[in-house]
Amino acid sequence: MNKVKVGIFGATGYAGLNIFRILSNHPYVDLKYLSSHSYSGESYKKLFPSFNTDMVLKTSDPEIARDLDACFVALPAGETSKFVTKLIEYNNNIVIIDLGADFRFKDKEIYEKTYGIKHNCPEILTSSVYGLPEINREKIKKAKIIGNPGCYPTSILLGLYPIIDRFKGSIENIIADSKSGVSGAGRKLSKEFLFCEVNESVRPYGAKFHRHQPEMNDQIRLISKDAPELIFTPHLIPMQRGILSTIYVFFKEDLPEEEKLKRLYYERYKDEKFVQILENELPTTAMVRSSNLCAINICKTSNNTIKIFSAIDNLIKGASGQAVQNLNIIFGFPEELSLTNIPEVI
Amino acid sequence: MNKVKVGIFGATGYAGLNIFRILSNHPYVDLKYLSSHSYSGESYKKLFPSFNTDMVLKTSDPEIARDLDACFVALPAGETSKFVTKLIEYNNNIVIIDLGADFRFKDKEIYEKTYGIKHNCPEILTSSVYGLPEINREKIKKAKIIGNPGCYPTSILLGLYPIIDRFKGSIENIIADSKSGVSGAGRKLSKEFLFCEVNESVRPYGAKFHRHQPEMNDQIRLISKDAPELIFTPHLIPMQRGILSTIYVFFKEDLPEEEKLKRLYYERYKDEKFVQILENELPTTAMVRSSNLCAINICKTSNNTIKIFSAIDNLIKGASGQAVQNLNIIFGFPEELSLTNIPEVI
Amino acid sequence: MNKVKVGIFGATGYAGLNIFRILSNHPYVDLKYLSSHSYSGESYKKLFPSFNTDMVLKTSDPEIARDLDACFVALPAGETSKFVTKLIEYNNNIVIIDLGADFRFKDKEIYEKTYGIKHNCPEILTSSVYGLPEINREKIKKAKIIGNPGCYPTSILLGLYPIIDRFKGSIENIIADSKSGVSGAGRKLSKEFLFCEVNESVRPYGAKFHRHQPEMNDQIRLISKDAPELIFTPHLIPMQRGILSTIYVFFKEDLPEEEKLKRLYYERYKDEKFVQILENELPTTAMVRSSNLCAINICKTSNNTIKIFSAIDNLIKGASGQAVQNLNIIFGFPEELSLTNIPEVI
Amino acid sequence: MNKVKVGIFGATGYAGLNIFRILSNHPYVDLKYLSSHSYSGESYKKLFPSFNTDMVLKTSDPEIARDLDACFVALPAGETSKFVTKLIEYNNNIVIIDLGADFRFKDKEIYEKTYGIKHNCPEILTSSVYGLPEINREKIKKAKIIGNPGCYPTSILLGLYPIIDRFKGSIENIIADSKSGVSGAGRKLSKEFLFCEVNESVRPYGAKFHRHQPEMNDQIRLISKDAPELIFTPHLIPMQRGILSTIYVFFKEDLPEEEKLKRLYYERYKDEKFVQILENELPTTAMVRSSNLCAINICKTSNNTIKIFSAIDNLIKGASGQAVQNLNIIFGFPEELSLTNIPEVI
Repeated sequence: MNKVKVGIFGATGYAGLNIFRILSNHPYVDLKYLSSHSYSGESYKKLFPSFNTDMVLKTSDPEIARDLDACFVALPAGETSKFVTKLIEYNNNIVIIDLGADFRFKDKEIYEKTYGIKHNCPEILTSSVYGLPEINREKIKKAKIIGNPGCYPTSILLGLYPIIDRFKGSIENIIADSKSGVSGAGRKLSKEFLFCEVNESVRPYGAKFHRHQPEMNDQIRLISKDAPELIFTPHLIPMQRGILSTIYVFFKEDLPEEEKLKRLYYERYKDEKFVQILENELPTTAMVRSSNLCAINICKTSNNTIKIFSAIDNLIKGASGQAVQNLNIIFGFPEELSLTNIPEVI
Repeated sequence: MNKVKVGIFGATGYAGLNIFRILSNHPYVDLKYLSSHSYSGESYKKLFPSFNTDMVLKTSDPEIARDLDACFVALPAGETSKFVTKLIEYNNNIVIIDLGADFRFKDKEIYEKTYGIKHNCPEILTSSVYGLPEINREKIKKAKIIGNPGCYPTSILLGLYPIIDRFKGSIENIIADSKSGVSGAGRKLSKEFLFCEVNESVRPYGAKFHRHQPEMNDQIRLISKDAPELIFTPHLIPMQRGILSTIYVFFKEDLPEEEKLKRLYYERYKDEKFVQILENELPTTAMVRSSNLCAINICKTSNNTIKIFSAIDNLIKGASGQAVQNLNIIFGFPEELSLTNIPEVI
Repeated sequence: MNKVKVGIFGATGYAGLNIFRILSNHPYVDLKYLSSHSYSGESYKKLFPSFNTDMVLKTSDPEIARDLDACFVALPAGETSKFVTKLIEYNNNIVIIDLGADFRFKDKEIYEKTYGIKHNCPEILTSSVYGLPEINREKIKKAKIIGNPGCYPTSILLGLYPIIDRFKGSIENIIADSKSGVSGAGRKLSKEFLFCEVNESVRPYGAKFHRHQPEMNDQIRLISKDAPELIFTPHLIPMQRGILSTIYVFFKEDLPEEEKLKRLYYERYKDEKFVQILENELPTTAMVRSSNLCAINICKTSNNTIKIFSAIDNLIKGASGQAVQNLNIIFGFPEELSLTNIPEVI
Repeated sequence: MNKVKVGIFGATGYAGLNIFRILSNHPYVDLKYLSSHSYSGESYKKLFPSFNTDMVLKTSDPEIARDLDACFVALPAGETSKFVTKLIEYNNNIVIIDLGADFRFKDKEIYEKTYGIKHNCPEILTSSVYGLPEINREKIKKAKIIGNPGCYPTSILLGLYPIIDRFKGSIENIIADSKSGVSGAGRKLSKEFLFCEVNESVRPYGAKFHRHQPEMNDQIRLISKDAPELIFTPHLIPMQRGILSTIYVFFKEDLPEEEKLKRLYYERYKDEKFVQILENELPTTAMVRSSNLCAINICKTSNNTIKIFSAIDNLIKGASGQAVQNLNIIFGFPEELSLTNIPEVI
């Protein structure tokens, strides 16, 4: 089989780095190109001295698109849409998997309001696909441009889909309380992410607004038009990887018994390689660490309320792993290729 | 001034140990007695080799009550009520501050159902007082027996009181999502508390029921008889100390603007030494670490919903510090005596 | 190719669990058998609910050897040598990779003195091989029984070999100061490994004696008969995985310049897939996390003293990964099969 | 008693912040002045929202010296010596406790070589005193200017003094391998101190040279002129506070038995409130956390080698606590005033 020629634009951030790690075990990928804004010209090994590679970081030159079949884009917000336009100019056929927010919305207004920047290629939004394979697999198969979902949305949407889909119209309130490891912030040099500020502390943030909220509301309303606004609170906790979302849903009607609700989840995800519906235990982030899994359990707490627990590794299923999963789908590879890492439970 | 003669029954658990630490800076306390089930006969210094003390751990002998003015009881659930009966037999005048659950309820049925054990001195429950000073100060002043609140209830009730008190009758739903450091579990030797199982993971537990739920419902209904059942989820996170509770309240009516809601909190707590209503920042557990403070902020998220954030050090305001605060109140000392530790924000 | 039929005796400890994780990506291994003392009869998935497996834990029955080509033994100290004798009775041809200490010594006296237990099959010690592939590869190829090295010895011996081998006879003193994550202690239920006792603390132990000391002295003297007794101090630090050994060597003679010393290391390890001699940076444990790598750097600090830094993931190169590496060597597979995980530097 | 009027120059760094915390419980200190370069004009409470203070941060104006009896200087390296000259111009009588390196050396050449900057008031060096009270108490009593020791030197020198003093002339080699929490780096905004870079990793640094080395050599040679150059390696480990130094000393002669060596330590430190010689256990950093203690144990490992273990809280005994201890000595207060915090062992 001809290998797919792949580039990573933004290879030194946490997402790009983890795509590199995953692809290095991919049998059908030929990694041709790594770019970096801050470190172009340096060897990748200089940054990650234990890596056995001789690749050199280049600038993010869109012309390289001519030599690539696919690329991952992990650029700072705002740069992406401009850059993608150019990539397509050089290679109309290239598959682009964007890890930022530029292709997560159909409606450029919501994007522009949420991110406070102009979208530079709104015309592409009609054909780009929200890359949550468990929901959008068929569309992804045919897509050229993927908006890879945010980490919080991945954990929350996978937890919500089966129940919203089944009881649409009956949802009264949804609250998602998420706990995230610090790597979600990327390699940002900011005081609040210094070890001494993070360790031995929990920190809520974005209590009034977080950029992932519109993304989630958008997706929820694709299933249930009249779903209520999601109430969302992210929290930073002293660990590197992992997101646990605890989701509370209130319904307007009485629900069937818990066992039946759970069967909904088993049914919905029975063919999914990367979703694990737990039988008895509640999910923890350790259960999915370093893997592309999402572990879910639900629990009925009254006639019309449930709790849903959903855990992912924010860097893998919440970013790099899901990105490679999308690549596998688009190129017709087995979906789990290079993503079979058993969770590092210890 | 004559010093108060004090004993600690259960001096080697995390609560007892921290009471020892706090009292060692208390000018009016004469610490006479430390007991331990597992280590009786050994010097305290053997367990905590850096402590500069020559106290020896005794068995928990109730007769010692004759020589004490007050005592802290940090015994395993079930032992306490039997033990307290005997303490009173030996010294009818002794002040007892119990760190367990045996004196947190007025209704022994709720206690027995919650803890699955018989209460051995239900007759005392009419005179014992729930030791949350910011709410019950006047009753505490006259009490002989204090049921020191649980750690989760302390953080949640302090966050809820002003708003429930003002809008009683109008509360539709309350959800408390709490994140706790591991010391809340005490020194229990259980696999789930091993470093390698806790670190780099978040773990929800008690999704259907937690023992602190009836305690909180009980207290909430003292302010608002028809308040809804609290929905509660505790989570274990990889840190030693601290609880952050994120509380979502839905109201049946539209609320005044956020600033007015906040003023409720400033008003309610304006004379409280240990409650800090934050102006702009959201509370973190680091903000209160090693102190007896509870830091609170609230945030209106829609016409009829608010988020309340409440942070404490679970070992101090959530246990030992609050216990000493109760002692200070009962004996007429300045309430903050030996509790003036500025939070260890770093 | 016929797959190798493999069993893991002791599959629920940290070593066994990680062998399971690694083998699940091994193309030529057919994992037939998992045993556990405490959990026999239960499904593996019950213990590790996110694992996608239907294997059931069995008792450690040596008769199963008949159906196996190879096995990993991760049993408590003392049980192993008895058990291995029986395995061989049932299958004289079976390849045994023991993760304990029973086959790490040639001299049963040293073993018995070090571990305080009788060795039950000393006759095997003549044919068993110390499984440090970078040193003993040729012997391992022909071995049936491997004593997989301890975690501290792996990091220290790989750091010492090139320099001792070159300057044997000239070594004055060797000090190895090692810092280990907590998983090195395994899943032992002991107070000292509780999260609250480990976190935010460094703890030295075994200051007078540690079981890995004789193992290291034994190996060092195979290269240089008159090498001095190694001075060794292990430390427990608040992390899960990883060992960094800082090694100080004093020589009786003046050494060549640093660059020449470093060339010794490059030369010695130039064909080794799992040893990385760093150019400029000092090794950290993050550089090798989740990988089978050992990262090394050396530094000349005076005419006759050097510092050597050596980092491994104690669960991988220090246990499970090295065990699989040994399996690959014995069966003639590419040595890095299923061990190509790029370090999880973040 | 008239209170001492005190200022803190550099009140927002980790050292300044902890001096503030300690002084807030000091009965004879009137804290008049807090300065900050980056935050002047802002309220201290804005930075530390849970603090109950209305102090406002000022610029570092030396003229304020007129209103102060004493001050703590925690300014960036290089600024200090200039600033101190001016302080003295305004108030020739002011007591200055400098937390930086500018007054730690008698010989300005060593300082200038070590720090690569010119010393602006070398004439002061003859009267300034190295503020390690357990060694220099009598000189400190009469000093006006204190060079507060570095954190590594404090832990290592306290561990070394008794043995060097007794066996001076006989020391062959000294190796100090130190493990430090991250707060030692201060609030520096640098990638290497981000949570995700520090957590789950050990990092050695300064393998060839660290600024505290000349400081230690200087002090060691005051006791034993012909002592060898100290070999030193600092390591960063994933915790906030604490330094453990593991010190290896080789002697030219055979040593007396361990018990006698230990008696040296008991004798030397028997009147010291802040040095704890442990009987059986090895010191951990948790044993001294949040306290001004230094916990030490020693262990004879051969006829002529010993290991010394020394633990401090780097922010307290290694900086702020020791600074206040020096203040107490100079002003004739009980040395432990406001420093009686029992270690936060959990």
